[in-house]
Parts: sequence; C-alpha cells; structure tokens
Amino acid sequence: MLQLLSNNKSKYIISLQNKKQRLKSGCFLVEGEKNVVELLQSNFKVETVVVTAQFYEKYQLLLGQRRMEVLEAEPDQLARLGTFETNEAAIAVAVSKENKGLKALENEWVIALDQVRDPGNLGTIIRLADWYGIKKIVCSISTTECYNPKVIAASMGSYTRTDIYYTDLPNWLAKQNTPKFAAIMEGTNAHQIQFPQGGILVMGNESNGLSTEVLELCENKLTIPRFGEAESLNVAMATAVLCDGIRRQNPL
Amino acid sequence: MLQLLSNNKSKYIISLQNKKQRLKSGCFLVEGEKNVVELLQSNFKVETVVVTAQFYEKYQLLLGQRRMEVLEAEPDQLARLGTFETNEAAIAVAVSKENKGLKALENEWVIALDQVRDPGNLGTIIRLADWYGIKKIVCSISTTECYNPKVIAASMGSYTRTDIYYTDLPNWLAKQNTPKFAAIMEGTNAHQIQFPQGGILVMGNESNGLSTEVLELCENKLTIPRFGEAESLNVAMATAVLCDGIRRQNPL
Repeated sequence: MLQLLSNNKSKYIISLQNKKQRLKSGCFLVEGEKNVVELLQSNFKVETVVVTAQFYEKYQLLLGQRRMEVLEAEPDQLARLGTFETNEAAIAVAVSKENKGLKALENEWVIALDQVRDPGNLGTIIRLADWYGIKKIVCSISTTECYNPKVIAASMGSYTRTDIYYTDLPNWLAKQNTPKFAAIMEGTNAHQIQFPQGGILVMGNESNGLSTEVLELCENKLTIPRFGEAESLNVAMATAVLCDGIRRQNPL
Repeated sequence: MLQLLSNNKSKYIISLQNKKQRLKSGCFLVEGEKNVVELLQSNFKVETVVVTAQFYEKYQLLLGQRRMEVLEAEPDQLARLGTFETNEAAIAVAVSKENKGLKALENEWVIALDQVRDPGNLGTIIRLADWYGIKKIVCSISTTECYNPKVIAASMGSYTRTDIYYTDLPNWLAKQNTPKFAAIMEGTNAHQIQFPQGGILVMGNESNGLSTEVLELCENKLTIPRFGEAESLNVAMATAVLCDGIRRQNPL
C-alpha cells in the first residue's frame, strides 16, 4: 500500500507552480504520464512522485528503480496539484539542475535564444532541438525560465535530453568560435545558404526579434523565404524550419 | 463621441466565446490590435467593434470606412469581453463565412487536416499556410472549429486570407485529382522527395495521426527525418517544415 498524500505535501507541490518557490526550493513540477515516465528514465533527481493507483500498477517496476517518495492520490486531487486540467497519471517533484556553462564545439549545432518569453515556445523549441539532434540551448537571462510547468509540458520529455544554460548572451556569443547565424526579417534567403557542420543558430524575441547587441555578434543573417502574406512566423516554427534546413545539409 | 458599450451588448459579446452561441448567431470574436486591424482590412463583414479611446484615435480613418457599430469601452471592460488577459485595443464581432466547397487545382498546394483538435495548432497552421502562399485548408468535420477565439488569435490575421472548408475528408480526398502526401511516422524521407508543383499535404491528429481511411487515399507517405530522440514533432511544426520543403522546390 502506498502512503497517501498529506495536506502539507499538497501545499508544497502546489507552491511549485510559482517561480519564486521553484527558485527557493530548487525543485520543479513534471506532470502527466509521458513526462513523468521520461523523467524517471532520465538522470534528474526526483524528490516525490504522486501517482494514481492505475499509474502505479502500470509503472511499478520503473518506480521501484529509484529512491524517492511515492505517494498515492485520486485523479481529481492530482489535477489540483498541478497546472493540467486533468491528470489521471502522475505528478513529480524533480530537482532542478545547476546552471552549468556550455561551449559550442566545432562540429555541433547549438541554439541560442535571445529573450524568448513564451513558455510554450521555449518548450516547443526544446522538443524540436531534441528531434534534430541538437543537445545544447543557450538562453539570455531574460528568456523564460525552463522549469516553468508550461515549458516542461510543451517539451514532451525532451528537456531531460537537452542541456540548457542561462547566461549573458552577448558576452557568451563573443567567446564562441563557431559561425553564428541570426534569424532576422531581412537576411539572406535560408534556402540558399550553405550551412557548415557546426554553428550557432540565434533566435530572437517573439515581438522584437534580436537585440542589436546580439545581432552585431552574428556574422550571418538569414531569413526564411516568404511566399504569401503573413507578417511573420512564430519563433518555434521558424526554429523548426531552420533546423530542418541545417540537417538537410548536415545529417548526423 | 462614441456610444458606450451597454450591458446587453456585453453579454452578447461574451456569449460568443461559446461555440454553440457562435453557431447560433453566425458570428465570432476577433481580439487585439493586429487582429482587429487585419479584420477591418479584409472582406469579412463586421457587426460591431468595441474600441478603447486610444485605438479609436489611431484607427479612426480605417474604422470610418465601414458601416458597422463602433462602441467605446475601457481596457478592463474590453478584457472582460474576450479571452485575452489584457486588451487595450479592440474586440470585434465579425460574421462567419459560409462553409463553401473547395477544389484542389492542378498547380496549387492545399493543406488537408484530419482531426486536428488543438485550436492553437489550427491557428498556427493557418498562419504558416499564409506565409508559404497556401490559400486553401480543407478540414475533416472533427477538426477544431476555425472560429474559436484561440484559432483566430494564433492565426495572427492570416485567417482573413485563407479559405477554410470543413467536409467529410475521405470523401473529399477521393474526388481530388492532384497527388496526395500524407505525413506519417514511417514514410519516405521528406528530404528526398521531389514535390510536384501542386498537391495536397495531409496532416493528422496530434495523438493518433491519420485515420486509416484517409491514409488509404494518399499515394505518397512521407516523414520528416529525425536526428535525435524526441518521439514526435508537434503537428504545426511538422506542417511548417513540410511546407518549407515544398516551396524550396516549388517557389511561387
């Protein structure tokens, strides 16, 4: 028999929806079947998992492979703990990783994000980086926090396989030796660029694009060609299209 | 001086957040500066626009070019009418277009959607279709309603330039003469396909992909190559990547 969720624990878990509490505790929330399963298979430390009886039955072996607190709750209790409207599987309290420095190596592609604010966009970018075999994402300090529950949910488990580093982006870019490609509205046609084997793809803010400081550090400026009338592509969409273009020429 | 928003009108506008009410009245909501401006520049009929004094001052000329009711409200009142958290610009009640049949012509690309359920995904697909110069989207009856406020918001005005037709999708596909390309998990590498000048790109449901019935009607099956470990790409993301691949070979 699993221990039941206490009121105090409930309050603690709910508090982690809040950024201040996440920073204070060094923990974050992972919600839903797929995300929790990927978490348990990853190298993230897990403090607590709250599960339904059904999830427990299905994943008993996986749950048994770790030292952590496993508590039981009803689906409606579970949904109240997190941000999902319904959750019939599980919610976990995982330990955030330290913000460890990253370097762009010669033969690898890295994504750099300048002030990407929407958690859904960041989560989607993490997921597509993982699809295209890009393992490092470097974010400006002003980019939305990667442990926001919406980022975790949108990344669909890919956050467990991607290293994310928050830093002073212009300062970091200035120190990297691989070619930098900035996505802007009026650059070279991205269909006509020869992408090298490694480089940094630099994507900007949803409304304002890249800051001048960052732009000046990028020797290549590129644009996805437009054939219709939409004013812009969403930043996650544009990142997907450019990563696809890069891998077309540089498959792994 | 503009007339102020009445309580009855408020209730009516708020009711349009609801699908049943939209179907009953044949109207839908358009929120925020950019979306309302694009609406006013389009050929959609508009019943009512509720504006802030600031929006009115900025767009007085544009507002004056149409016969419609223009009402004034404070930003907090405006936000209460619609689905946006804040709205300091305008909200409009527009008249839905009739569901008019579409055909896929020989030299054009059309997107067909089979049970796409998420309004954000549909809105994003409309936006990127518009970016890539694709003017027709044909949806299965079970695809989310295109006048949902979230679809309108995510499409960023592109819904005004895109024809959308809801129909029995297998039945419709069976009658089209241009080549059909279904996006699936295990198809031909999309980087190695020669896309014709015209065709139908068929995209499926977020969790279950394409229905068997639809799949059987598609002579080409393609897949975006994966280089990392993410299980899948989001449907809007995949549509963007495939449209980009199509236009690489068939620019307009």
